[in-house]
Amino acid sequence: MTNLLPVLDHAAANVPAALERLFDLLRIKSISTDPAYKADVRRGAEWLVSELRTLGFDATVRDTSGHPMVVAHHEGASTDAPHVLFYGHYDVQPVDPLELWENDPFEPAVRDISGGRRIITGRGTSDDKGQLMTFVEACRAYKETAGALPCKVTILFEGEEESGSPSLKPFLEANAAELKADYALVCDTNMWDAETPAIAAGLRGLVGEEVVVKAADRDLHSGYFGGAAANPIHVLADILAGLHDRDGRVTLKGFYDGVEETPADIKATWDKLGQTAEKFLGEIGLSVPSGEKNRSVLELTWARPTAEVNGIIGGYTGDGFKTVIAAEATAKVSFRLVGKQDPGKIRDAFRAYVRAKVPADCSVTFHAHGGSPAIQLPYDSPLLNKAKDALSQEWPKPAVMIGMGGSIPIVGDFQKMLGMESLLVGFGLSDDRIHSPNEKYELRSFEKGIRSWVRILAALAAR
Amino acid sequence: MTNLLPVLDHAAANVPAALERLFDLLRIKSISTDPAYKADVRRGAEWLVSELRTLGFDATVRDTSGHPMVVAHHEGASTDAPHVLFYGHYDVQPVDPLELWENDPFEPAVRDISGGRRIITGRGTSDDKGQLMTFVEACRAYKETAGALPCKVTILFEGEEESGSPSLKPFLEANAAELKADYALVCDTNMWDAETPAIAAGLRGLVGEEVVVKAADRDLHSGYFGGAAANPIHVLADILAGLHDRDGRVTLKGFYDGVEETPADIKATWDKLGQTAEKFLGEIGLSVPSGEKNRSVLELTWARPTAEVNGIIGGYTGDGFKTVIAAEATAKVSFRLVGKQDPGKIRDAFRAYVRAKVPADCSVTFHAHGGSPAIQLPYDSPLLNKAKDALSQEWPKPAVMIGMGGSIPIVGDFQKMLGMESLLVGFGLSDDRIHSPNEKYELRSFEKGIRSWVRILAALAAR
Repeated sequence: MTNLLPVLDHAAANVPAALERLFDLLRIKSISTDPAYKADVRRGAEWLVSELRTLGFDATVRDTSGHPMVVAHHEGASTDAPHVLFYGHYDVQPVDPLELWENDPFEPAVRDISGGRRIITGRGTSDDKGQLMTFVEACRAYKETAGALPCKVTILFEGEEESGSPSLKPFLEANAAELKADYALVCDTNMWDAETPAIAAGLRGLVGEEVVVKAADRDLHSGYFGGAAANPIHVLADILAGLHDRDGRVTLKGFYDGVEETPADIKATWDKLGQTAEKFLGEIGLSVPSGEKNRSVLELTWARPTAEVNGIIGGYTGDGFKTVIAAEATAKVSFRLVGKQDPGKIRDAFRAYVRAKVPADCSVTFHAHGGSPAIQLPYDSPLLNKAKDALSQEWPKPAVMIGMGGSIPIVGDFQKMLGMESLLVGFGLSDDRIHSPNEKYELRSFEKGIRSWVRILAALAAR
Repeated sequence: MTNLLPVLDHAAANVPAALERLFDLLRIKSISTDPAYKADVRRGAEWLVSELRTLGFDATVRDTSGHPMVVAHHEGASTDAPHVLFYGHYDVQPVDPLELWENDPFEPAVRDISGGRRIITGRGTSDDKGQLMTFVEACRAYKETAGALPCKVTILFEGEEESGSPSLKPFLEANAAELKADYALVCDTNMWDAETPAIAAGLRGLVGEEVVVKAADRDLHSGYFGGAAANPIHVLADILAGLHDRDGRVTLKGFYDGVEETPADIKATWDKLGQTAEKFLGEIGLSVPSGEKNRSVLELTWARPTAEVNGIIGGYTGDGFKTVIAAEATAKVSFRLVGKQDPGKIRDAFRAYVRAKVPADCSVTFHAHGGSPAIQLPYDSPLLNKAKDALSQEWPKPAVMIGMGGSIPIVGDFQKMLGMESLLVGFGLSDDRIHSPNEKYELRSFEKGIRSWVRILAALAAR
């Protein structure tokens, strides 16, 4: 640890320049889910390659059938030290509704807010450009002080994380030898709170489905046909309303197969964190827990599966009124998975449930949008313990092991396809409004995130 | 009837010129429900005034707080003959989804289709510009042959029929003396079939409601909050799914108050028309009657009340997928009323039902979109019988008295505010696709519609 202080000092002193680099990346509109931004996504990859080359990485843009990957390699100072693969994603969510943003989502800025906090505003600040740049800047701090990285580093940046990562598995498969490392570092998660760093040991899986119900072969006048012709919005509403029972449980056949109760000792740890429904929901203007009854909000969001309708549209939705019976109606539905729930079986159960509800003269089509099982990492591995100690030295409070409600399918892919465990460390906060208007990242998360990676790399290298 | 033949011949001979005039009107994008077309709606009114003045009408554009009215007066040849008020509307429905139109909705044309039929294509051809011009052209035929109209005619053209007619009642009230006639002629309805003219004796009423359910104060990430935070799309789906019971009946409290069973003799007349669910629904690509069980499709659409969701939107509805829990979700819902159902009570019952379903930490807002009771005209009045005879002379098959599923609130307003009964005669067909892409009007409806009004005016004048 004798060499660490100058690296940490350098990281702190260079934050203004690091912010300029981050802003350059944030200005690129790399919205992967919308085909209109295809060229912008590629520009994001190219920017990162250029950036990594200034640090001595052997970096390239790698084409896929979708958006490109960035792959970069750097040797370490010691051949004894482990080889790590760092993963992040440079694509971002769409920004609609644009009118709700207080600042331009693609013109980042640092703003002072209440409580002496300083935030970086803009789409992708927290998810995930700001997070991935904490690692890149940690590498820069090593290069510009020690002249080398403490261990061999491979970097994989993806441009399709927000649109279901369709190219990821084929890419890992085709490049397994090149990408295999001793373990993966993933920076796409949250801290417990602004004082307490966290390592995510559990991640929910995800199944996405788009369902289109079609009825008449055209939009109908609700006066002439109303009362006799099937209305696809009614059919869809009935389908969606039936997904949950009165106790908030999901009704799909076999949905809870593979779902286990959280062990009592883990639950006890979570209870000690002091989270309450009032606090958790109060932040977003709500107060009453939805979903399954008699479970804490941490359990509901970390350890229980869900079904959520993410979008719905049908009929006339403009200003005023149009007395139409629509020809079709569409919903996007996602399931968060835990334990050993099987994404394929959940998808099949959903489709069977929907088909059984669709009237004989209507039809239904499905579009699959991603599917990944849940991940549960061992709570007491040496890897996690080293990272926990390193984080605890940087932040005011010791690091905690938490669950995560979101899905990071790549962690499962690393496990299955490359035989690598992942260390999930991130510096987001729950009020970062990721996927929503006014996304932000704490300036402190960026500063101390860089220093956290400096410490973690040192800890991992010292074996 | 001796003078009628030259008028009818003139009408037939002048169809090409009449079509040119109709096309001029159809090209005006008078979409009343969308504020972007406000100036186009006014242009529609101005065009009609100019047209009516060429026929010797004292015609004016009359401002309202919404879109303008057109009012025109013309004396008749005989002071003995009754004074009639003709009503039509020159505004049209929106045209989305535009990509489904085979021809430009605002560039009308005559096309040959299968079965030797010729159609006029475009928005408003059937609803209601093509229909109202049959009357204007009948007046022209009289003027250009006899030099006079057979009776005193007042014309009222409205520009807000497709957006709930907000200015109509105030306008009728303010101009009651000017608009009062012996009875009203309304041309906004259908024939029974292409051979059989029809007079509509019953019209369903309408209540429109827009409901917005709000949950969290922002869009949420479904990973972080899913399973704990209320999802407004779920709340809305539950509300809409609960509007009907398993037998297709509407569940609102008191909904069927004032709904009477159709008399057996009327039902028998309808049964003789030979309509079947297969034929009626087959035209639109469906086969299974929706709505209430064990009732004929004519009863369902003419004599039974309904609840229909006309539009729904919430969350992410673009390409791809976004794992968001929306902050709000919106539906447009309409109720078709029959008998003595009270629009105000139906609206109140709907709002009470919705409020009871909304969770404590969510909120709901409502926007009213029009409300009018159902109309039932006497089946055996002299007015209806004269019109029935006149129509039966023009068309291959005798005219029938039918019910109508759509709502024409003005008929109720004429009854209540001006003490006038209405004669509802129109030449639309059920496959005219009104309110939908590819709206059309049969060329034959236009030609014989003009001649029908020539005959009806003569019949009414001969008292």
